Amino acid sequence: MDNKALYNLSYGVFMLATKQGETVNGCITNTCMQVANSPTRVAISCINANYTCELLKQSGVFALTLLDETCDFETIRHFGMQSGRDVNKFTGEFDPAKLPSDLNQIPYLKEHACSVISCRVLESNDLGSHTLFIAEIVDAVLLNDRKPLTYADYQGRVKPRSDAAKNESSDRKIVAWKCRICGYVYEGSELPADYMCPVCGHPASDFEPVYG
Amino acid sequence: MDNKALYNLSYGVFMLATKQGETVNGCITNTCMQVANSPTRVAISCINANYTCELLKQSGVFALTLLDETCDFETIRHFGMQSGRDVNKFTGEFDPAKLPSDLNQIPYLKEHACSVISCRVLESNDLGSHTLFIAEIVDAVLLNDRKPLTYADYQGRVKPRSDAAKNESSDRKIVAWKCRICGYVYEGSELPADYMCPVCGHPASDFEPVYG
Repeated sequence: MDNKALYNLSYGVFMLATKQGETVNGCITNTCMQVANSPTRVAISCINANYTCELLKQSGVFALTLLDETCDFETIRHFGMQSGRDVNKFTGEFDPAKLPSDLNQIPYLKEHACSVISCRVLESNDLGSHTLFIAEIVDAVLLNDRKPLTYADYQGRVKPRSDAAKNESSDRKIVAWKCRICGYVYEGSELPADYMCPVCGHPASDFEPVYG
Repeated sequence: MDNKALYNLSYGVFMLATKQGETVNGCITNTCMQVANSPTRVAISCINANYTCELLKQSGVFALTLLDETCDFETIRHFGMQSGRDVNKFTGEFDPAKLPSDLNQIPYLKEHACSVISCRVLESNDLGSHTLFIAEIVDAVLLNDRKPLTYADYQGRVKPRSDAAKNESSDRKIVAWKCRICGYVYEGSELPADYMCPVCGHPASDFEPVYG
């Protein structure tokens, strides 16, 4: 089985936000699709280790901001490459008082975003690493006429590249692997090919070796 | 709720094939995403009215051909805009003897295709108009390095356009709506905004009025 064959599946890039009590959190995801039209249903997949996923299981409601082609890496880094367990992502320019919010009082992004879809979870299915949520749409707003950011465009154009690994000597011993996106370190000489960063969700191909 | 907000979700375009006994059939879908990575799982959604969906519920196995950017409308029309209940789609150039097949003996496309993913269904969830299948991947092959065809690219570039409706007089009475993709006719003056063609799966925006 060639994992690269799966890279040809097409996705968008989204900021998934939820509010449980007074706690607001959000993360970056690339998995949402409409799965039925009568009645209208969407499915999203969320990493179980993510704080947003933990909150969503309790709140049962989310706002999915569909990022558009003008979105920069900083927005994705802010929501996607740090944990809401460590920092409050909704402060400063992302203070909920400064952002629009949907009918569930969940803030969403209006800059660099072409749509927002507000949903209520109907079913959840724990698949091990991720939970698949099936939801009904309670509101959907078109924000502008820009094109959505695709995951392929994010990988090829928006995400910064690192050539650090290329200069390392091949005869030194690899002791760990570091996620070049968020800095998470995997201890061990061999990174599994299907490994995914538990913090930012990037695949093994985004890790670079750490030499001992 | 603005249905146009949902059009900003990003999808690919796939030929979904299955084999039940000696019967082979396939259709065009745009909904597949990887929903977990440990273990690896994908989810696909399929219109219940489709013959492929009926067969898949029995066979439990499918081959998903990921169409690439070179794919023409004829291939999509052949698999997506006629029913396997009326015609055998796997004849002529698509005779299974002329096509490659996966480890479940399900034929897939090698022309205009960048990957093929072979799956076994683990769970199915009837959502009304569609069934959502969760599947394990039993094989995945990268066919070439061309870019996948996206649904947006299909809508904007590959699909033919019709300007027929523009020349109709606005004071004539609409008695039905015709799918400009496959010709299916919906009887009635008002087409619901969330209507989807039961034959080819295209949305209400692909229907043109029929005047009485």
